[in-house]
Amino acid sequence: MRATFMYGAGDVRVENVPDPTIQQPTDAIVRVVRSCVCGSDLHPFHTLPTQVAGLPMGHELLGVVEQVGSAVSTLAKGDFVISPFAFQDNTCVFCREGVQTSCVHGGWYGAGGVGGGQAEAVRVPQADGTLVTVPGEVDDALLPSLLTLSDVYLTGYHAAHMGKVDARTTVTVIGDGAVGLSAVLASRQLGAERIILMGRHVARTDLGREFGATDVVAERGAEGVAKVMELTGGEGSHVVLEAVGHMPAYEQAYGIVRPGGVISRVGVPQYESAPIGFGSLFGKNAALTGGPAPVRAYIEAALPDVLEGRIEPGKVFDRTIALSDIAEGYRLMDAREALKVIVTP
Amino acid sequence: MRATFMYGAGDVRVENVPDPTIQQPTDAIVRVVRSCVCGSDLHPFHTLPTQVAGLPMGHELLGVVEQVGSAVSTLAKGDFVISPFAFQDNTCVFCREGVQTSCVHGGWYGAGGVGGGQAEAVRVPQADGTLVTVPGEVDDALLPSLLTLSDVYLTGYHAAHMGKVDARTTVTVIGDGAVGLSAVLASRQLGAERIILMGRHVARTDLGREFGATDVVAERGAEGVAKVMELTGGEGSHVVLEAVGHMPAYEQAYGIVRPGGVISRVGVPQYESAPIGFGSLFGKNAALTGGPAPVRAYIEAALPDVLEGRIEPGKVFDRTIALSDIAEGYRLMDAREALKVIVTP
Repeated sequence: MRATFMYGAGDVRVENVPDPTIQQPTDAIVRVVRSCVCGSDLHPFHTLPTQVAGLPMGHELLGVVEQVGSAVSTLAKGDFVISPFAFQDNTCVFCREGVQTSCVHGGWYGAGGVGGGQAEAVRVPQADGTLVTVPGEVDDALLPSLLTLSDVYLTGYHAAHMGKVDARTTVTVIGDGAVGLSAVLASRQLGAERIILMGRHVARTDLGREFGATDVVAERGAEGVAKVMELTGGEGSHVVLEAVGHMPAYEQAYGIVRPGGVISRVGVPQYESAPIGFGSLFGKNAALTGGPAPVRAYIEAALPDVLEGRIEPGKVFDRTIALSDIAEGYRLMDAREALKVIVTP
Repeated sequence: MRATFMYGAGDVRVENVPDPTIQQPTDAIVRVVRSCVCGSDLHPFHTLPTQVAGLPMGHELLGVVEQVGSAVSTLAKGDFVISPFAFQDNTCVFCREGVQTSCVHGGWYGAGGVGGGQAEAVRVPQADGTLVTVPGEVDDALLPSLLTLSDVYLTGYHAAHMGKVDARTTVTVIGDGAVGLSAVLASRQLGAERIILMGRHVARTDLGREFGATDVVAERGAEGVAKVMELTGGEGSHVVLEAVGHMPAYEQAYGIVRPGGVISRVGVPQYESAPIGFGSLFGKNAALTGGPAPVRAYIEAALPDVLEGRIEPGKVFDRTIALSDIAEGYRLMDAREALKVIVTP
């Protein structure tokens, strides 16, 4: 089969590799129907040192079950499934507490002998715990939105959920990428009536407005902070959803968070240390939350909203690319010529 | 009157100064009945550069109202009052949201022309919002516990409250100072059944056990982390209450916090930047909360527990010192010869 590998910064290749096979009785093999390129794939696309063996890429996928291991009991050949971007048994103590991305038997696509989702097929470990079946016939028009339940929409949802967004909270979303826009949509779903989107790409912020943003702030840094403070009457934002992962976005976040407010991060931090002392978080009792989204915890609840058309998070996809051309998909996203690229096999 | 000033590291003096007077119609003058030395007073005691004018010290006090400004409506001469360690109007938008330490009309004792509590009397700004009257005759035996409602017990309570301690959460308290021990007592009050106290001063950890600690870990650093992980079956602690403020305590905190858990800080951070990236907080979806405790929000609810003897947080005071000898009180606490010093006028 064909699968995508990264050999270094800017070096994405589609190669022929052996088809995946069942290795553990808890595995399933899934033929990929749709996958996509993630904003987080752009981090190694910028910085990955040259590799001798390419890294398997991709962690968002819809597919059809082709084969299941002997211990898999809830799935059968032909099932149409959504895979979260991480696998998990969904039964361990951390899964039961809603932190499936910390599952004791869990892990990540593209690591530890598990392939990536930007491929024709993939081996899914802990298949019973990981895969969620979509019932009935699946309308092709729903594929983009269903695919967002694999990661991007529910990552935005995780940010809003951990930030305890509701009708009483002012929300500011930092970042007009696909996760940021998803965080806008999720905040609206959770009842937020005032949603400020910080971003400066008009096509994206227009989609943000369609998703529910009430205000758009194009300024960045100190100017952006001043603008949000002005919009909030000098008080700051109850909830700040940080969907970028770079230090300037975090600095904006603690600049605009209100006393007693919360910063919820879902952009993978490209830093380890950052200000959290008296002058940033502590002095105003601001909280910090977030992490890799345990999307498995949220898929079942979001699925009816997608299937019945109440939300259309798949609008974040603005370009379709064939798997064989995926390197062009990376380029388009890196150049911001595409917001998010959906990949057909 | 006599009042306490710090002129530099290790240099605490009691001096005669003019009695405080009403300056704003919202002020009250309070004659101090009991004050005390705070763990946070030891930070400048270690590091304060030499001052030309001494800094007024002390922010925890019980007293009797001597005089009120013309706009004060809820207090009268003779009322026995508890003062939170910060003053506030208790009506502004942040006060109404329970973040009184960020009050738009608030501030701190010992700054901006307001004196300190380690004195015979003090001017209390925003007196209606700040002071809480203790009803009826006040039993001298209750003074130590009542004084803890000014700061130390309710700072421990704030840590536990923000960490969402309840019967289902394993709690680890870092620090066996008076705030840490208060956090143990507050966690017990909130229903915690497993409370691990990290500290190595046996007299203090013994009081911690009396307050509700079920386990004591004397080890620090990597050994301390390993011990707590062992005690929690390798899973980590749902809630970590950090009551120290130094970096090694924070490092222990993120080492032992469970995936999806929370670190709640009330020790004033003696650092600004610290690890919060993938390897510390983000990867395991650990949250960070806490700050200067808005004790005003909690006094009324805690007061009956003290007056009716259900809790005795005043046990953290193990030495009584006269105001004129307060420099010795600082020395005793700094040398860890005293846990917390109560000061009589």
